[in-house]
Amino acid sequence: MKIQEATLLISPSETDSNLYYVSGFLAPDPFIFLQVGDEKVLIMSDLELDRARSQARVTTVLSFSAYEEAARNSGTENPSTVDVVCEFLKERGITRVVVPSYFGIRHALLLQDKGYDIEVRDDPFFEERVRKNKEEIAYIEQALRTTECALEKAIEYIGQTRIRDGFLYSGNKRVTSEDVKRLIDIFLLENSMIAQHTIVACGEDSSFPHNEGSGALRANAPVIIDVFPRSVRSRYYADITRTVVRGVASDEIKRMYDAVSAAQEIAFSMIKDAVNGGDVHQAILNHFRNCGFESGETDGRMQGFFHGTGHGVGLDVHEPPRIGRKRDILSAGHVITVEPGLYYRGIGGVRLEDMVVVQPDGIINLTKSPKILEI
Amino acid sequence: MKIQEATLLISPSETDSNLYYVSGFLAPDPFIFLQVGDEKVLIMSDLELDRARSQARVTTVLSFSAYEEAARNSGTENPSTVDVVCEFLKERGITRVVVPSYFGIRHALLLQDKGYDIEVRDDPFFEERVRKNKEEIAYIEQALRTTECALEKAIEYIGQTRIRDGFLYSGNKRVTSEDVKRLIDIFLLENSMIAQHTIVACGEDSSFPHNEGSGALRANAPVIIDVFPRSVRSRYYADITRTVVRGVASDEIKRMYDAVSAAQEIAFSMIKDAVNGGDVHQAILNHFRNCGFESGETDGRMQGFFHGTGHGVGLDVHEPPRIGRKRDILSAGHVITVEPGLYYRGIGGVRLEDMVVVQPDGIINLTKSPKILEI
Repeated sequence: MKIQEATLLISPSETDSNLYYVSGFLAPDPFIFLQVGDEKVLIMSDLELDRARSQARVTTVLSFSAYEEAARNSGTENPSTVDVVCEFLKERGITRVVVPSYFGIRHALLLQDKGYDIEVRDDPFFEERVRKNKEEIAYIEQALRTTECALEKAIEYIGQTRIRDGFLYSGNKRVTSEDVKRLIDIFLLENSMIAQHTIVACGEDSSFPHNEGSGALRANAPVIIDVFPRSVRSRYYADITRTVVRGVASDEIKRMYDAVSAAQEIAFSMIKDAVNGGDVHQAILNHFRNCGFESGETDGRMQGFFHGTGHGVGLDVHEPPRIGRKRDILSAGHVITVEPGLYYRGIGGVRLEDMVVVQPDGIINLTKSPKILEI
Repeated sequence: MKIQEATLLISPSETDSNLYYVSGFLAPDPFIFLQVGDEKVLIMSDLELDRARSQARVTTVLSFSAYEEAARNSGTENPSTVDVVCEFLKERGITRVVVPSYFGIRHALLLQDKGYDIEVRDDPFFEERVRKNKEEIAYIEQALRTTECALEKAIEYIGQTRIRDGFLYSGNKRVTSEDVKRLIDIFLLENSMIAQHTIVACGEDSSFPHNEGSGALRANAPVIIDVFPRSVRSRYYADITRTVVRGVASDEIKRMYDAVSAAQEIAFSMIKDAVNGGDVHQAILNHFRNCGFESGETDGRMQGFFHGTGHGVGLDVHEPPRIGRKRDILSAGHVITVEPGLYYRGIGGVRLEDMVVVQPDGIINLTKSPKILEI
């Protein structure tokens, strides 16, 4: 007899993009997804049952309460979520479940206690999610176009400030990082995108890659603007970074900008189907070293280039593959960022980030925003 | 010899509020938290190392790369996150780790393979997180005040529309659910709060508790407005719901409104330290039945009152305890919603939601927004 197995997810699709990907249903609280052969099943609370029936892209939507009742009838006093799952598995004669690496240990232990075999399938849990189809690429491009508009409005705004005493002014008010972030985030929300942790980091703040920035923006200093919002409708992300200087950039920043820009070109020229992302990352590390930009811990702080070269983007803003030390193999259909950067204490940071689609023999760069340092 | 144990989390604090709660550090990618006795340790990637050193509320911030190197030196070719954790555990002579119920099965299996004992501690993982201290209640109140302003602006806007042919007009334009949601969400963003899935559901849409609503708003029909944004600064949530009718409410809706309003009062009068939430929930079910409002599946759809009475609110919008069938015991310091509702096909829905703090002998209602049905 063939062993019957089911794929199993128990999570809120609000945070588990695999579950949203496979079910097309968005809910804030955990729910149960099971796939048996081609049949996709949701088991939903009373609260979500009818909404799931009308919105989910699955074969069957079943009632949690009904299975809970069944579990109670077979002698379980206070049925847990796992008891409900087991009622379904029993009904179907399934003895083995396939779960993702992040499947909760408590649920796994309860299933094992009840005699089920558990197979953990590592990322990517849904193989096909990593390679984007035409519809997904269209969603990502749509998200990116809106994000570029927001970015360009921010750069235009910074470009129109007046410089006084080394600061940027709009009217008689010093322009702050917070002002520019608000401008970006509100424009995005007006266009049905949700941005969180938008980075507008100037001067010393820009020397920490994930510092969101705060306070008055300075003239003649680098401003890293990194925007990565999610489309409310499609739920796909875009991700873009530009670095600008209002006024005149120092020679050091100019040299860093040229090196980062060239690093992007190196990556663009190397990336294609079947290339090892680790090799791309190493080539950029070598390039920076050859240009005289050292990376590593100096004076008790990380300096130089000390993050990955890029990451997949889709229903999550960071998803497989990574272009970095992990040596992921790139494939046609991957949508990834290319975002080298350099960061030095007392000087600041420079990062440029585009989104590209990996092709059989190269890339398509989805990003159209110009790269201009001094504004 | 005493067995040395450590508390262990491996997740992104962006989505794992336990990790944010204990570390005070926000990052989008998974990182390692360990607690040994009173010592709190983060192990961070090169990218986040220095930002964590300056922002995290922990005892020690260690370098992931350094432990990775150590693992390589002790013979592991491609050290995983778990290998890094094990290097730390080895160094400290720790043989047992305590993890939350949602700890990833893959990490757990790898730890077990290496001979570590794993203890799963169920929710609440950090006991003290459930009972809010003064500072947390102040954050929640702050969030709620801003949310009430947004809600009141929305209600004022709906109240000022003109009624024509059964629809609501602003100028010559029909007012839609989307218009009102945008007004709410943008006001909140301007005040440093992020709202997602704001509900403005009218007429039939309002008969599904989690339907976000869409299209033109109708006169003389219930509009459920449910707003639950997060403060960008404090990361605490607020959660409030009001139901309004622009024009004249039907007798049925008026009866439902009165019953829901009375249901809230029943809950308010029962809730205090040591009360079983299941009893509160049951009292409301009984009350609705006594008023003639039946709950359950009718004509193939859930109708009546078919969600929980309330839930904890804090760094997550839904967190323990629940007031519902799960029979959680309420304690002084819990901040919970009280949100009974009634939903009928062809009639619509009514829900009212306040946030209260459980006290030794009653509640403090944090919510100040009035409850007025017809506007």
